[in-house]
Amino acid sequence: MTRTPVWRAIASTLTNEIADGHYRSGDKLPTEAELSSRFGVNRHTVRRALAELADQGLTHARRGAGVFVMADPTDYPIGKRVRFHQNLLAAGRMPDRRILTLQTRPGDAEETAALALPVGAQVSVYEGLSLADNSPVALFRSVFPAQRFPTILTDLEQLLSVTAALERGGVADYTRVSTRLTAKTASATQALQLGIAEGAPILRTVSVNADPDGKPVEYGHTWFVGDRITLVIES
Amino acid sequence: MTRTPVWRAIASTLTNEIADGHYRSGDKLPTEAELSSRFGVNRHTVRRALAELADQGLTHARRGAGVFVMADPTDYPIGKRVRFHQNLLAAGRMPDRRILTLQTRPGDAEETAALALPVGAQVSVYEGLSLADNSPVALFRSVFPAQRFPTILTDLEQLLSVTAALERGGVADYTRVSTRLTAKTASATQALQLGIAEGAPILRTVSVNADPDGKPVEYGHTWFVGDRITLVIES
Repeated sequence: MTRTPVWRAIASTLTNEIADGHYRSGDKLPTEAELSSRFGVNRHTVRRALAELADQGLTHARRGAGVFVMADPTDYPIGKRVRFHQNLLAAGRMPDRRILTLQTRPGDAEETAALALPVGAQVSVYEGLSLADNSPVALFRSVFPAQRFPTILTDLEQLLSVTAALERGGVADYTRVSTRLTAKTASATQALQLGIAEGAPILRTVSVNADPDGKPVEYGHTWFVGDRITLVIES
Repeated sequence: MTRTPVWRAIASTLTNEIADGHYRSGDKLPTEAELSSRFGVNRHTVRRALAELADQGLTHARRGAGVFVMADPTDYPIGKRVRFHQNLLAAGRMPDRRILTLQTRPGDAEETAALALPVGAQVSVYEGLSLADNSPVALFRSVFPAQRFPTILTDLEQLLSVTAALERGGVADYTRVSTRLTAKTASATQALQLGIAEGAPILRTVSVNADPDGKPVEYGHTWFVGDRITLVIES
């Protein structure tokens, strides 16, 4: 009979405690020092047990913050109107956004085509990080026609909401025209920004939103963390 | 000045030939022996150059078949009616399917709930591989209510088409009720079946199709190769 290694026994105990709801989705696990003392083992053994939980997708480490029980993925509907804040609130998560860059520059061929602008027209670009319950769930880049929305970058900076900024720009409503989806793996930079491992699965959407006249107002890329978001299409 | 390594010069020559259309998307590259002879280098050097092309996502190796120029991803619409054969033909690809398993067994909790069946009801399961132009693009598992469609497995075996098999079962039309999407990475088994690297990005959909009365007729999982398929939602 093979003896179960100590690290495996600890991993199994913690797995059961997560399954039993002793630690709930999103909870922080005790620190390595606390677990060492609880189980009477050295930190190396604790680390091995924690690595096992992470491999099983039960936990994720956040740099400098500790180890957390993996939250159930958030359902994110892709319907006629896709609104980040509303989608997150409807899923019972607290939405938040952090700005990474705001700039106006000439649009590339893809951007001007998507926005039905002349080649080389100026676009305003909003790049940032989307969070649910303080955990990063997506990186995004939204591109707007700069001439039509001359104050959009300062509006976004103040309001942190695309819907509110477009409303200030005279667009009371906008709807999703198309969404293209594919799977990618996280680059080193994306991994760092999203607090995930390099090579972790990413769901990338490329989308166009238009005003009620059908004029494109936003061309967006979003890189969702595969484990944290499930996109939902209902018909 | 650093001298460019020979393998890098060869990789660069082949990259240019792909960019110029000398080798087109889906084409087979010459064999290692042919490239060795063309460039007057040993196979080890050729292999290093080919690895560089694969790393850049320009080519992919198919076990026993050779190295192929990566095809542009196939657009795959997720609309009211999702039909594999029609979708592929519309994208200019030749669709094909290979059966991996056909079996009838008690449905698990998720399957019977999705199909609105009593707990433990029998389901018929069709697992297989979807191909576009002879290249694997997806693995799928389709689950049907066994009592309602008693001959569906033999029908699928003969017809290789869900649409045709459901029609034989009395369902003249069916529509997509919901699609849930997330990103995953390929397991060792999936990688082998799809001819991709372990850890490569996979787009997973979980879907329900219903008959015109709204009764679920198919509960499906599909694992699309991230590089080979772009799902498209148009509204």
